[in-house]
Amino acid sequence: MSGNRRVVLRSRPDPAPSVENFAVESAPAPEPGPGEVLVKVSHLSVDPAMRGWIAAVRNYSEPVPIGGVMRGVGVGTVVESLDPGFVPGDAVYGWFGWQEMATAEAKAVRRLDLGFAPAPAYLGVLGMNGPTAWYGMTEICRPKPGDTVVVSTAAGAVGSAAGQIARLKGASRIVGITGSAEKARLCREVFGFDEVIDYRATPDLGAALSAACPEGIDVYYDNVGGATLDAVLARLRVGARIAICGTISVNFNAPTPPMGPRVERALLVSRARIEGFVIMDHEHRIPEAIAELGPWVRDGRLRYREDVVDGLERAPEALLRVLRGENLGKQLVRLVA
Amino acid sequence: MSGNRRVVLRSRPDPAPSVENFAVESAPAPEPGPGEVLVKVSHLSVDPAMRGWIAAVRNYSEPVPIGGVMRGVGVGTVVESLDPGFVPGDAVYGWFGWQEMATAEAKAVRRLDLGFAPAPAYLGVLGMNGPTAWYGMTEICRPKPGDTVVVSTAAGAVGSAAGQIARLKGASRIVGITGSAEKARLCREVFGFDEVIDYRATPDLGAALSAACPEGIDVYYDNVGGATLDAVLARLRVGARIAICGTISVNFNAPTPPMGPRVERALLVSRARIEGFVIMDHEHRIPEAIAELGPWVRDGRLRYREDVVDGLERAPEALLRVLRGENLGKQLVRLVA
Repeated sequence: MSGNRRVVLRSRPDPAPSVENFAVESAPAPEPGPGEVLVKVSHLSVDPAMRGWIAAVRNYSEPVPIGGVMRGVGVGTVVESLDPGFVPGDAVYGWFGWQEMATAEAKAVRRLDLGFAPAPAYLGVLGMNGPTAWYGMTEICRPKPGDTVVVSTAAGAVGSAAGQIARLKGASRIVGITGSAEKARLCREVFGFDEVIDYRATPDLGAALSAACPEGIDVYYDNVGGATLDAVLARLRVGARIAICGTISVNFNAPTPPMGPRVERALLVSRARIEGFVIMDHEHRIPEAIAELGPWVRDGRLRYREDVVDGLERAPEALLRVLRGENLGKQLVRLVA
Repeated sequence: MSGNRRVVLRSRPDPAPSVENFAVESAPAPEPGPGEVLVKVSHLSVDPAMRGWIAAVRNYSEPVPIGGVMRGVGVGTVVESLDPGFVPGDAVYGWFGWQEMATAEAKAVRRLDLGFAPAPAYLGVLGMNGPTAWYGMTEICRPKPGDTVVVSTAAGAVGSAAGQIARLKGASRIVGITGSAEKARLCREVFGFDEVIDYRATPDLGAALSAACPEGIDVYYDNVGGATLDAVLARLRVGARIAICGTISVNFNAPTPPMGPRVERALLVSRARIEGFVIMDHEHRIPEAIAELGPWVRDGRLRYREDVVDGLERAPEALLRVLRGENLGKQLVRLVA
């Protein structure tokens, strides 16, 4: 185990991301320091938020530097440990980046309970995505019996979990918005949404939402922002709660600020709340999330799908798939079969 | 006491409100039914929200019907009681409307504690306005030591209370936005704001906010919406809280929906929250608010100003004063000297 391959950021999107923004390079295998572990990475997570991490603009985390290893979480196996808390063979999760071998501080690494699900599940439903959905739905949206809940990117790793968590927490009607007939079918048949809107096949999203939510919308778990958010804001019930988890439909790097219908009157008339959140602020609660989600996953009450691409060098391509909405389920890159 | 004069809504604003939308008419004095009281009204409250109540559009309460007595709260004295809970002479508060004599269900009427302040204070700092500020600041904004708090319409009945409550709750820096040099002086000298921005004398509100809030904005108590809200959203600190209490700067009755910079990215990047509220949803908490505000008012720690117009027939004119921002302090109409 003398070498390491890794994907670094070569340039920033200008304006659209491409595989040319990345380069694969070889390097010596990193060596763990005191209190660190050396991990052989088996799977990488590929997430829409990475679009923000490779941009130069202010964001909720620092941009990945040019020449730096692409940031990301992964799972793998400890091969060397300079910390008493881990031994070789432990299945672990951490911010390993897009590389085959990674060192990490032991305290920043989490051991995986493979009794709930196989390791790659800890990159999705039991990794960032499920706990993200759990935090946004449980802490911000607080669904209750009688509620109509709308989720965007409903077939995605976060959206599919958000819809199912709302159901498991007692909401009455779960409506998904997604971008293809195949994804819509997945939402209905696998994730149990009551209604699904394929926005690409819908000439009038507002009318489709009105039809799917005849009593209005109590909860909106928003992964996209933009026109979808606008359509929801026009259909709120009193006391509605909206969690802003992502804004991928809007280009906030455009030369002029994106405009939209003003929100303050809808919020006042409906006594509604919009709140943005970033799961990294709440990492200390992930064990609590997994303690609730794990048994649901194990028992098949919380279902998930994975979309696996093989080979480190294909990680940039996998990211573009995600940004184009082509993945079906949680996008992973598998480094070892 | 055989007659009653009252102000009714004659027509709806088209588009701007005018005194012509109202008419004064005479009627027999109303007679209380079982469980009701008859009240001689002494003071009317005049509030910006009335602009919404006289419009035909959907709102957070039903429009005042054409020909109906103008809706509003007032204070007065019980002259006849068919309820064991009240006796003639009791000082009371209720939804009496713009009229000299009113009947009301006893359970919808509140007896006033004149030990905290004279009766008209119960139309402002101890009526709707103080408790509105209290609810929005205490329940939604939750100021804490270290926080920079911004309040719009800072010289108004709600804004002046909101700023002072933030201070009394421990916030570190209170910044007001108001519309004249005289109001700015009032905010500084009477209400104790640390900084006040006269937006009418400020060419660049954003730059003025940046100067007044060098560390960014933790809390915004919003009474206006529009460009002021936009300027605040561009300067949020992580974890910011915004209470939407009013949207008077934006004409939501315009033929096309008012547009503004999209909000979702700012909310996500700053993990911020915007929430609209209407105090009428929380009327059961007003006694709790008054229990906290009353001693502050009595002891001079929570200060307020009143702007009194004499005569029922001048109530429409008083409303226009409020909508033009010409009042200095809580706008009242006095019916009896």
